[in-house]
Amino acid sequence: MNYKVIFNTIGKIALILAVLLVIPTVLSASLLENSWWALLATAGISLVIGLVLTFAIRPRNKAIFSKEGLIIVALSWIYVSAIGALPFVLSRAIPNYIDAFFETCSGFSTTGATILTGTQIESMDRGLLFWRSFTHWIGGMGVIVFLMAFESGSANRGMHILRAEMPGPTVDKIVPRARSTARILYLLYIGFTVVQIIALLIAGMPVFDSFVHAFGTAGTGGFGIKADSIAGYNPACQWIIAVFMVLFGINFNLYYLLIMRKFRSAFKSQELWIFLGIIVVASTAVSIDLALADLPFAQGASEAVRHGFFQVASFISTTGYSSIPTSVAHPANINSFPLLSKALLFLLMFIGGCAGSTGGGLKVSRVAILGCSVRKELRKVLHPRSASAVKFEGKILTEENMQGVTRYFALYMLITACTILILCLDGGEGLTLESNITASVSCLNNIGPAYGVVADGYYMYNWLSKIVLSFAMLIGRLELYPILLTFAPSTWIKR
Amino acid sequence: MNYKVIFNTIGKIALILAVLLVIPTVLSASLLENSWWALLATAGISLVIGLVLTFAIRPRNKAIFSKEGLIIVALSWIYVSAIGALPFVLSRAIPNYIDAFFETCSGFSTTGATILTGTQIESMDRGLLFWRSFTHWIGGMGVIVFLMAFESGSANRGMHILRAEMPGPTVDKIVPRARSTARILYLLYIGFTVVQIIALLIAGMPVFDSFVHAFGTAGTGGFGIKADSIAGYNPACQWIIAVFMVLFGINFNLYYLLIMRKFRSAFKSQELWIFLGIIVVASTAVSIDLALADLPFAQGASEAVRHGFFQVASFISTTGYSSIPTSVAHPANINSFPLLSKALLFLLMFIGGCAGSTGGGLKVSRVAILGCSVRKELRKVLHPRSASAVKFEGKILTEENMQGVTRYFALYMLITACTILILCLDGGEGLTLESNITASVSCLNNIGPAYGVVADGYYMYNWLSKIVLSFAMLIGRLELYPILLTFAPSTWIKR
Repeated sequence: MNYKVIFNTIGKIALILAVLLVIPTVLSASLLENSWWALLATAGISLVIGLVLTFAIRPRNKAIFSKEGLIIVALSWIYVSAIGALPFVLSRAIPNYIDAFFETCSGFSTTGATILTGTQIESMDRGLLFWRSFTHWIGGMGVIVFLMAFESGSANRGMHILRAEMPGPTVDKIVPRARSTARILYLLYIGFTVVQIIALLIAGMPVFDSFVHAFGTAGTGGFGIKADSIAGYNPACQWIIAVFMVLFGINFNLYYLLIMRKFRSAFKSQELWIFLGIIVVASTAVSIDLALADLPFAQGASEAVRHGFFQVASFISTTGYSSIPTSVAHPANINSFPLLSKALLFLLMFIGGCAGSTGGGLKVSRVAILGCSVRKELRKVLHPRSASAVKFEGKILTEENMQGVTRYFALYMLITACTILILCLDGGEGLTLESNITASVSCLNNIGPAYGVVADGYYMYNWLSKIVLSFAMLIGRLELYPILLTFAPSTWIKR
Repeated sequence: MNYKVIFNTIGKIALILAVLLVIPTVLSASLLENSWWALLATAGISLVIGLVLTFAIRPRNKAIFSKEGLIIVALSWIYVSAIGALPFVLSRAIPNYIDAFFETCSGFSTTGATILTGTQIESMDRGLLFWRSFTHWIGGMGVIVFLMAFESGSANRGMHILRAEMPGPTVDKIVPRARSTARILYLLYIGFTVVQIIALLIAGMPVFDSFVHAFGTAGTGGFGIKADSIAGYNPACQWIIAVFMVLFGINFNLYYLLIMRKFRSAFKSQELWIFLGIIVVASTAVSIDLALADLPFAQGASEAVRHGFFQVASFISTTGYSSIPTSVAHPANINSFPLLSKALLFLLMFIGGCAGSTGGGLKVSRVAILGCSVRKELRKVLHPRSASAVKFEGKILTEENMQGVTRYFALYMLITACTILILCLDGGEGLTLESNITASVSCLNNIGPAYGVVADGYYMYNWLSKIVLSFAMLIGRLELYPILLTFAPSTWIKR
């Protein structure tokens, strides 16, 4: 194990975190808020840790293998969540450290699950709210991808780390060098975010709100700044956010292809069409279901279609914004949805966005490969002696590819089951099997909202549940292996 | 496609069904019940169908390939369920044919889900109640295994059909000839059933009740004859049933090995120890959970342990009997269980019994192979270049074996998701996401009980839901492929 390179890289991540914290600090100070010093102090702490790790530990051998790559990714994400939580604790906005850790894991993992109540969110300082949503934006594309994009001389790190942090069963390099790939991804990401901010401003959303919600959408996170999420903004703002949720759920490679004018290759993507197809079918079904149910917030066809599309886009992209009130005290919240809509949205949580997007979940391409794999098995059962090849995205799927995806799915369901069991140890008020199942699935897939009392937030869970859910969010964001293997004793024992 | 051999075999199944129907007919007639003629008429109908099919269609070529094997199994099970439902309809005990079909599918598939209310069950004629539970007993070991065991000259059918009907990822022949294997299995099955009947009689259960409950236990079915399942019988009866539920959840090959005095091979079975281990851990957890919750039916340690063990044995063996009242009107039913117990029992539904037992679910060995497969993937992620073999039951698992199991799991979850969605189209009174999820999982895994209003029975579902659940039960009992492929158009199109 190359310990030096691991700690040295985490040192660099610490420096980046310190620099990123300067933005909310400046904002907070310029607004004359009390909490600016909490943000500055955290930046200072991270700066010191970063300097110590990068200057004291200088690896001679910079080679990174899979194992080191996984551990670097896992520890970096745990580091940014653990230190990124400090401003909330120091400013007493979230006095309990476990709560703040949950909130920051939820931020970086782009989940958007919150332990805050509506009133607490609305009374929080703007600097802290900015930081809270900014973690979504950083976590969406990835902390280490950021490091790779802007650090010089990281060429020899290769694709190991990029693979571990980028979502999807396979990571295609857009261009031969990993660093150039990382840069292109970040430039596209910044570009889209700016476009969304401008669109929201034109639609009449205030400046601060536009930035924060664009961060939440770009990272497919879902943190808002209002007690009722997006429900209070005008329909134009809701449509803009809904469309951008879909756009950020699409593989970024396709946008690069479009910019390079390779239209044919871009539109040949099977994953894209499956993703859009599911959205069309599901939002039609939910819209009809809502219209028939004649709910107070969906009176008439146009409202039903808007809420249907918004909720479907929000769940499948794993963002988790809501166009309807989220408070369980409110007569119209997600619990009042008709059963079919509730079930559909619940199942969309598992699917998630496309590979190479900022969305969570299993990813559309994994679901598609699972389908191909099952079809192959059905054919084999029928004709045991005939062998036939299965294709996806124009390439023949090898047995190893399919095995990787089916095993990923099995592990993923196993983690879901364990999370549900641990949550059921919690005696929190109003918790039911439904709320615990949806909360587990929601956190592991980085969505945020859940059913039952949890529709209102995660504040009723005890410390054990919050820690487990925090790690579930990181496990889901990093696609299972990095966190699990970092905590497996066999990873650290010499063979 | 060898249509002649398919219809000829179904004809033989029809004859067997006619013969089996004689037993409840005689019982009903001797008790001077009104419904005896309904049973006799059904026997007559099946006799005529059987004679026509076996004498009119005589296959010259008796060869059966995988495809014919799957179709024979699927159509046989649909036949016995469709015709076996007639006595309920003709006697007006269950006037609606879809309800009767549901009940009979539930019987043969050994699910035990019922559309009857407690009052309807208790007022039903004994002949019909006997037939209802007898379907569990027949379905437990298998209709076609029965045919193979007692028909002469079936040697050339080989293992294709036995494989399609016997549960588990692999079917070991106990002895070289399939027919001898089938006979040994049925003899063991009869033997155990007789022992259980005697045990129940000694514990003080009435004669008729002992027979019916032994059938329900042996097939891991769960149909009772009381509104409150097993809750009304004395603790001794409950313990006997609990122990036999566990025994019938164990691979029958192990019993044969024990009889052959091959103790070492029998006790070497990893699946056996995993199964027993899960039961010990889960029933300890549920017992403690019940004791701490201080529920009206579990006052004190001995009651908590009895109910804890009974419910765990009932769910993991996929029987579905209940030692506590099942009526949702009753203050103490499964919905009043603490959350941890509810979640544990729900997850046990997925696991099910051992391969080669009468239990449903995924089967313990499949769950174990899934675990091995996931471990192999974790090792591969850590050390991409090292290859290591994974062993289960003393044999190295091939990639193909593991691929078969992981794909089975993916298909199985997909079917679960589809079933949940269709049930959510149902506007039945009191249905929730929780009740629909547990009902789908319960039927597909052949357990029976579900949470929410469905704890009381499945009568609130509409005709579409009942048909879908009926097929889910058959799909689960026959381990997915036979029913699915029989209804796939590509199976019938010539290549």
